[in-house]
Amino acid sequence: MDYLAHFESTLHALKDERRYRVFATLERQAGRFPRATWNSPHGPRDIVIWCSNDYLGMGQHPAVVDAMCETARTTGAGAGGTRNISGTHRAIIALEDELADLHGKEAALVFTSGYVSNLAGISTIAKLLPNCLILSDALNHNSMIEGVRTAGRDKVIWRHNDLAHLEELLARAGSRPKLIVFESVYSMDGDVAPIAGICDLAERYNAMTYIDEVHAVGMYGPRGAGIAEREGLMDRIDVIEGTLAKAYGTLGGYIAGKRMVIDAVRSHAPGFIFTTALPPAIAAAATASIAHLKVSQAERAGQQVAVSATREALVAAGLQVMATDTHIVPVVVGDPDLCKQASDLLLEQYGIYIQPINYPTVPRGTERLRITPGPFHDQALVDELARAMVSVWQILGLPLGDSADTNAVPYNWPMAGG
Amino acid sequence: MDYLAHFESTLHALKDERRYRVFATLERQAGRFPRATWNSPHGPRDIVIWCSNDYLGMGQHPAVVDAMCETARTTGAGAGGTRNISGTHRAIIALEDELADLHGKEAALVFTSGYVSNLAGISTIAKLLPNCLILSDALNHNSMIEGVRTAGRDKVIWRHNDLAHLEELLARAGSRPKLIVFESVYSMDGDVAPIAGICDLAERYNAMTYIDEVHAVGMYGPRGAGIAEREGLMDRIDVIEGTLAKAYGTLGGYIAGKRMVIDAVRSHAPGFIFTTALPPAIAAAATASIAHLKVSQAERAGQQVAVSATREALVAAGLQVMATDTHIVPVVVGDPDLCKQASDLLLEQYGIYIQPINYPTVPRGTERLRITPGPFHDQALVDELARAMVSVWQILGLPLGDSADTNAVPYNWPMAGG
Repeated sequence: MDYLAHFESTLHALKDERRYRVFATLERQAGRFPRATWNSPHGPRDIVIWCSNDYLGMGQHPAVVDAMCETARTTGAGAGGTRNISGTHRAIIALEDELADLHGKEAALVFTSGYVSNLAGISTIAKLLPNCLILSDALNHNSMIEGVRTAGRDKVIWRHNDLAHLEELLARAGSRPKLIVFESVYSMDGDVAPIAGICDLAERYNAMTYIDEVHAVGMYGPRGAGIAEREGLMDRIDVIEGTLAKAYGTLGGYIAGKRMVIDAVRSHAPGFIFTTALPPAIAAAATASIAHLKVSQAERAGQQVAVSATREALVAAGLQVMATDTHIVPVVVGDPDLCKQASDLLLEQYGIYIQPINYPTVPRGTERLRITPGPFHDQALVDELARAMVSVWQILGLPLGDSADTNAVPYNWPMAGG
Repeated sequence: MDYLAHFESTLHALKDERRYRVFATLERQAGRFPRATWNSPHGPRDIVIWCSNDYLGMGQHPAVVDAMCETARTTGAGAGGTRNISGTHRAIIALEDELADLHGKEAALVFTSGYVSNLAGISTIAKLLPNCLILSDALNHNSMIEGVRTAGRDKVIWRHNDLAHLEELLARAGSRPKLIVFESVYSMDGDVAPIAGICDLAERYNAMTYIDEVHAVGMYGPRGAGIAEREGLMDRIDVIEGTLAKAYGTLGGYIAGKRMVIDAVRSHAPGFIFTTALPPAIAAAATASIAHLKVSQAERAGQQVAVSATREALVAAGLQVMATDTHIVPVVVGDPDLCKQASDLLLEQYGIYIQPINYPTVPRGTERLRITPGPFHDQALVDELARAMVSVWQILGLPLGDSADTNAVPYNWPMAGG
């Protein structure tokens, strides 16, 4: 075995498939977001980010940055240990209290990432339930799929957002313990789960519910607790999982639910027990961000205005905008090479950064630019974006409609299995 | 199924086994470490931490805290996305360059934790090698075990640090790809792997080597690159895994190795691809810490002085100190209840915080207090610790020798399987 040659060949295979990813190195500028500096091959260049998951720009909010710096100055840079071995600090307890309050739950538990939250949360809950059947939406995120796999329990995949299929599978499962795992906002298509219908079924068939709200917390509901809050459904869901790294602008993930459930995960999840706690400075920054978005509507309103303006401008320009009900504005290219070329041209010629989204993140044939307008994208930036995209589409010979509108966009690509 | 009642019963079972963990909430004080405030049931109390994994107190180093705050002020609190989706920033590239240089490797890759580094690193490398056999030390950390499990490849466990057993298993494996995974310093016993012997065997049998140096980086070797650096063996190891959350005082983990290997992990590991990048402020703090410890010997020297002083004082006091060659000073209690009681008494009566280490972290019957002296534990603190421990041992009726010495300590407890 020539190990190095083998790894080299796996990389060549990715390159041949146009799946090899090159990361753009950015330097964001607090106070000027979504502007940033791109370390291009020709030196630093000023650009505008249109694909950030710092959806509301909270990463640069003075209250968030102040909380981070003040806490680092008073308590230091790290936690110093796992939660059990000297790493439980006042700031992380305050954050967990804030999260429990946000979701109207008895308790919350913080992890170092949303990825680990799902991996640890789903696998631990399912492992603790004897003979548990996991019912997983076909488009669930990779972190949820890894949680389901790690659980080692029986699983069935229900067709994306298909309540009839879910009911069929629940009815067939009988009286064994059942855990339904799904997202509220699916990040690549921007569509929303039928949460009330899922809760109805869960109650009818005595299943536990686990919802991933990572692309919703901070942005929906009167206090920013997510889609379930907006729809008055939080108390009907057993476990709400969220992130501190997107709309809240920091790092980490969490679950919230009944005290017994959260305490069981705390006590059994290896991905929680055997890892260093989030630093106090990060916890304090996240708490400040959540507290701000609990009362301030300005960021959410600003985001909605920018999303509408962006969608309107792109549709008016004849671009293939996927119909969504959320802040995620996907524009279809439908080919991995062209998608990468469109992204490169936008960056190099127009200083607009939108990462190409190719397989396996989305199904082949649905390659896209995924645009996430936020409250700091003003009308001038929106107009620049539309003009630049039209130019790039013309350079690449991509189709442009005359006066397409959102509803006219064909959106019926096949979906990948979860 | 009554879900809540079931979770409650799993918690009762833990309590009955004395395995239910209660976390002490601490507030560390930058500049006064190892002193901290404990939020006790009776209000805040001043205590001294003796079990931190911030081994060198770098979490409070002004250069580290300054780097964190300055970067947060200029770039914001978070990264804003996964590495692929707008989350690759200048600070994390600088950190990866610094880590590659530290270990004399072509490349390094940063993860959100050491736990995820091992999970993603081991599982991805093994998955990419067809028919790979993983050879795993019996005492490997949970994160490595999860990496081995997630790989889904054949595995064999070699007896802890037993070269003859490892050779037997390598010889039996034949010509298939092989990955040897092990640690340099085992965190609960403080013993050190026979790295040179493992490298010899790996070369003889054409196996890849993967070493976990999380309890060594920053503390051993002339530039703090770990035990492999101290022993001149870094270039003979394929992948070196380390943490930024212990001696470097911040958060995150990494792997370093040949460019092809690191790039393959970067391109295939779900736990890397689908998670938000470490914030620039954390990356900058970690880089400052590594850079400092590359040139400064003061922290390492101070730690060694404190370790010797602590060991001598505890042995002289007649406590059962396990023989180790490292900065980890385990004192055996041998019973989970007494271990918890000893920890509680130290905290409540003497303001000394040392977390009890019980099963499953260590084998039953070897329950212990794991003491980690650092450069800020001076002789006065050491003397206080010895006096307090003797008092607690007397209260609990635990055995105290007359004038035990390190070598006289019986250390032959059975070891748990990996």
